[in-house]
Amino acid sequence: MLHFEDFAPGRAFALGPRAVSRDEIVAFAAEFDPQPFHLDEAAAEASLLGGLSASGWHTCATVMRMMVDGFLGEAASEGSPGVDEIKWLLPVRPGDTLAGEALVLEARRSRSRPNLGICRLRNTVRNGEARTVLLMEYAVMVRAAPEAGA
Amino acid sequence: MLHFEDFAPGRAFALGPRAVSRDEIVAFAAEFDPQPFHLDEAAAEASLLGGLSASGWHTCATVMRMMVDGFLGEAASEGSPGVDEIKWLLPVRPGDTLAGEALVLEARRSRSRPNLGICRLRNTVRNGEARTVLLMEYAVMVRAAPEAGA
Repeated sequence: MLHFEDFAPGRAFALGPRAVSRDEIVAFAAEFDPQPFHLDEAAAEASLLGGLSASGWHTCATVMRMMVDGFLGEAASEGSPGVDEIKWLLPVRPGDTLAGEALVLEARRSRSRPNLGICRLRNTVRNGEARTVLLMEYAVMVRAAPEAGA
Repeated sequence: MLHFEDFAPGRAFALGPRAVSRDEIVAFAAEFDPQPFHLDEAAAEASLLGGLSASGWHTCATVMRMMVDGFLGEAASEGSPGVDEIKWLLPVRPGDTLAGEALVLEARRSRSRPNLGICRLRNTVRNGEARTVLLMEYAVMVRAAPEAGA
């Protein structure tokens, strides 16, 4: 189990690899982001995105799953108060395989809840051509290790 | 059709109402954010969140759908380069009904693509008790109206 003490600034956790299929892209978009460039090849090719691409929220949700599989699922996580920044730098295309890392930027103990730490991390996620598609900075709350003898 | 010129700073678009069910919360979490407090009542009650609650990414995806239904679906949208900030202020619970507004903060024409505008908006989303659960600031690219006679 990873506790607050394990989130030392500079430590990085691997994310992925995880493939994103056309069916997943269209299913997510149909439910949550039914804009033509996420649903239909012809409309997407006529758009600024130049071809079918995942909703940015689908990319974020997929990366969240990569975070849970990569480190959060074995951490004493208590969720997140929010996100400082998301940059959708390049479209995520059908068949792309995403991979990257979550880098710990900062970790501090909560003043009001000393058994809790607030960690700031940055995700860098690349496609199969090693080009960065997503940058994201966010906070995660993680419980501190139980004190010896407690 | 809403064009860049329609996104005047100060204009607000209504979002929702949209209900979020327990089944939706658990299904989204099982796929994208399988942390115990999004999946299981007992684990959630023992957590900081104090009860089952939606993944923050589920809330964002739901609000994206409210944006498409509320104004983006009839806008000449070309997608988004990113998000400046997300604050998950309160948990979204099974049965919550979300509603709010998207306020235009700023709108400027792209220098490199004069037929495109970049609009910054802030979403404020409340639950059925009128308490704010989500604040989000983000950019959207919107095509300008075709020139008269073009």
